[in-house]
Amino acid sequence: MQKFLLALAAAGYLATPALAQTTEKLDAAALAKIKDEGLNRSKVMETAFYLTDVCGPRLANSEGLARANAWTKKRLTDYGLANANVEAWGDFGRGWDIDKSYVAMTAPYYHALIGVPKAWTPSTPGNLRKSVAYVNVKTEADFDKYKGQLRDKIVVLPVATPPQPNFEPDAKRLTADDLQKMADAPAGGAPTAANRPAEPNTADRMAAMRVARELRLKLTDMLLAEGAAAILSPGRGTDGTVFTTNGAPYAADAKPVLPELEMSSEDQLRLIRLVEAGIPVEVEMETKTHFQTQDLKGYNVVAEIPGTDKKLKSEVVMLGGHLDSWHAATGATDNAAGVAVMMEAVRILKASGLKPRRTIRIALWGEEEEGLHGSRNYVKNHFADPATMQIKPDHEKLAAYFNLDNGAGKIRGIYAQSNEAVKPIFTAWLQPFADMGASTVTLRNTGSTDHIAFDAVGLPGFQFIQDGLDYFSRTHHSNQDTYDRLVPDDLKQASVVVASFVYNAAMRDQKLPRKPLPAAVKPQ
Amino acid sequence: MQKFLLALAAAGYLATPALAQTTEKLDAAALAKIKDEGLNRSKVMETAFYLTDVCGPRLANSEGLARANAWTKKRLTDYGLANANVEAWGDFGRGWDIDKSYVAMTAPYYHALIGVPKAWTPSTPGNLRKSVAYVNVKTEADFDKYKGQLRDKIVVLPVATPPQPNFEPDAKRLTADDLQKMADAPAGGAPTAANRPAEPNTADRMAAMRVARELRLKLTDMLLAEGAAAILSPGRGTDGTVFTTNGAPYAADAKPVLPELEMSSEDQLRLIRLVEAGIPVEVEMETKTHFQTQDLKGYNVVAEIPGTDKKLKSEVVMLGGHLDSWHAATGATDNAAGVAVMMEAVRILKASGLKPRRTIRIALWGEEEEGLHGSRNYVKNHFADPATMQIKPDHEKLAAYFNLDNGAGKIRGIYAQSNEAVKPIFTAWLQPFADMGASTVTLRNTGSTDHIAFDAVGLPGFQFIQDGLDYFSRTHHSNQDTYDRLVPDDLKQASVVVASFVYNAAMRDQKLPRKPLPAAVKPQ
Repeated sequence: MQKFLLALAAAGYLATPALAQTTEKLDAAALAKIKDEGLNRSKVMETAFYLTDVCGPRLANSEGLARANAWTKKRLTDYGLANANVEAWGDFGRGWDIDKSYVAMTAPYYHALIGVPKAWTPSTPGNLRKSVAYVNVKTEADFDKYKGQLRDKIVVLPVATPPQPNFEPDAKRLTADDLQKMADAPAGGAPTAANRPAEPNTADRMAAMRVARELRLKLTDMLLAEGAAAILSPGRGTDGTVFTTNGAPYAADAKPVLPELEMSSEDQLRLIRLVEAGIPVEVEMETKTHFQTQDLKGYNVVAEIPGTDKKLKSEVVMLGGHLDSWHAATGATDNAAGVAVMMEAVRILKASGLKPRRTIRIALWGEEEEGLHGSRNYVKNHFADPATMQIKPDHEKLAAYFNLDNGAGKIRGIYAQSNEAVKPIFTAWLQPFADMGASTVTLRNTGSTDHIAFDAVGLPGFQFIQDGLDYFSRTHHSNQDTYDRLVPDDLKQASVVVASFVYNAAMRDQKLPRKPLPAAVKPQ
Repeated sequence: MQKFLLALAAAGYLATPALAQTTEKLDAAALAKIKDEGLNRSKVMETAFYLTDVCGPRLANSEGLARANAWTKKRLTDYGLANANVEAWGDFGRGWDIDKSYVAMTAPYYHALIGVPKAWTPSTPGNLRKSVAYVNVKTEADFDKYKGQLRDKIVVLPVATPPQPNFEPDAKRLTADDLQKMADAPAGGAPTAANRPAEPNTADRMAAMRVARELRLKLTDMLLAEGAAAILSPGRGTDGTVFTTNGAPYAADAKPVLPELEMSSEDQLRLIRLVEAGIPVEVEMETKTHFQTQDLKGYNVVAEIPGTDKKLKSEVVMLGGHLDSWHAATGATDNAAGVAVMMEAVRILKASGLKPRRTIRIALWGEEEEGLHGSRNYVKNHFADPATMQIKPDHEKLAAYFNLDNGAGKIRGIYAQSNEAVKPIFTAWLQPFADMGASTVTLRNTGSTDHIAFDAVGLPGFQFIQDGLDYFSRTHHSNQDTYDRLVPDDLKQASVVVASFVYNAAMRDQKLPRKPLPAAVKPQ
């Protein structure tokens, strides 16, 4: 295996002080093998097809997620990985699946509507056909005017943001200017998701959201008590795109709620306008869902490429993404894309015949969407408990964790997550990918996904920067998060970048530098 | 009523030779009344609400169109118009309405699908649950491989253009550059719809389309003969938007076809990918439609503001738009918008107390979508038969016809339809609307809507230039053509521009100049 010391000075890289601190050894021959395998014999779209179309929606503890657990374990084993395992992380809650979903307006005329059952909501008692009531409450005092009016009604709730003609493109890539701003950004920042449209989480706004959430929970109880038949809630999105959430807790002992759908904005607004104009509106709907309470545990899928260096093979480089999704589509960009890329990265490493010094472990997380449960509990079970801040022996063995969960766009760089010492290392590692669009290291934090579970206990966990494409406008948690959204060339590029990072982390003499342990952590 | 001679020279307008030929009298007081009524007391959105949400989809000869005929006749009468009438134009064909539409994938797992019955297709025999076959034929020779394979199958047809992330905005307005190009364009040009993305209709392309259409008709017959249960066709569109068409002739004696839906691209592609991978796919669907064959006639709604000038009141200025729509939504931009604006224009004129010299007649056309049937037959019944080219006496009485049918965007000018002599007149009439964005007169032809019926027999028929907004990307014939797409300020602007044009045409000493009669026309 040919190695070479990257000629950083010749490449003009020593001009920046940060880079002057590192001389990363990069293995050009290994990189060539990775690129050849990943770009010329890619399986990433085949993997994505199985995860999305074949396994289907992969809601936490659903049948689709169980199919995906079984399929990924088998496929990773087929790739030659060792110790593939569907590993319980602890108790999650109920499984829930949809067996039928139909909704239409039947008066003043027939029109099929686009709506999706909210996760963990119950069935309707057969096919309902009921008149519609519009309920618009701003405060609890407003409840009074609806009392006694709602028995057997299908209740329609207001749409916060009516659709507008959209003069902005759905899909965007990061511009050179965007990337420069990220490169120049200081360490820190709110750990929110990357590239999400700016929403300042001021204290006022958070408080208002808490109040709205409380009011909504009370409204749900009121509507149940008043004997309403079902709830039609507005889904964010336009043009047939509906963003979805859950409509009830997944806890096995959750109290009852009404059947509830999230509706296309346009359909919801038509119902509202008609009712408001005094025109009798009737809706027909049939929801069949079923709960699974036999196995309340949550799972992660893990598998390994064992290390080959006697001294280093007890150390681990991890990579992962979450296997679960929301239920209204097949979770292609959130996050079959990330899982397919991570699986492809380990396939590339195996198929290339490379011999990593450290052990490489892939983890496909369960129950991310409900609060990073899979990764947080894995970290708690294996590395450190963020509640007690007690550290386990494996904590010191983790060389790095790499995550991918910002949609289907290609990798443009990586978040150093305020870890100043890794910046020059990542900058060097990205250098061979500059011509593929990935060269930016930002000190900025990013959040909302599974690297946070590692970062929270002082482990070096990182998320890549990706082109957003139509993640926030169309696919993220929506009924349009399908295989069709995946851009093959982007996912191939991401696969070779990740494979290279993981390989570099597995070959490096030292583990990746860490930030100081969080102050509250008490080492054993 | 105060009148004034527009000081064209002072406004710098006499600099262009075309304008030097005209000195249009404009009535500033009347214009002020029109703007005041139309901008400050608009009813255009209320009208649009009734046309879309209340009347519902308005397919040719459907129950929704009948509701719209009755409602518009009454509303025009309420506005104070005379001679409101639902006037039969001749024989159209069958009425057709949807009573139920449900479609879902039930294996390998459950997933509700977005699909719309093609117009004039029949019901399924109850709720079908059948396995899916993918049929991809390029030539008639391909039929053989499917023979004997399709009994009782739900047949899925290929998707021509898979979705891609969209880096272009859905909605656009005409730029200054776009408008300048239109202003500079020579007379003539293909009479295709305005602002439609360029699709050169070469002879080769037309021939290929004819071949494809022939093949599709033969395939439809083959699938029926083979005993297939239903057809799922790909609908153009993405993200939940599905563009729809008809799936069978509307003729009362049309031969039988299978139940057929137009499907969301993403849903259709998932079915295809699964079948192609050898995974058994099952679809459940229930379509209930009914035909109406009691009254096969088609109708237009007409009403008048009688003229007040003894010599000129026998002459008529017409304005119109088509009342019918496709069936998958409520035809808001195609063409409730145009109808609402035209109704608003006559309301404004009545409410302003203006006394037009000529009679103003509004016509809301039926059956435009199937070939401008309402307007063509109205023209044939009242003005001239384009087949025989025999001209009726009223032909000479028509001062002008103004049409609006390019979506919900505001008016940016008007197509002079190769009529060089009207260019300076329209330029002068637009001058008071320059600050509202409407100032362009193009000699270019535009087509695909009802002014063509007038133009075809040598009558001065004109269509306005409008901002496209998301007409071709989202709404034109789609399941997303809903009230929500309408931009109130745009429709208010259009209403006052149209009211002003109609008023000017009714007040002008001469009728609008005409192009030479088509050569084949033989005056009586």
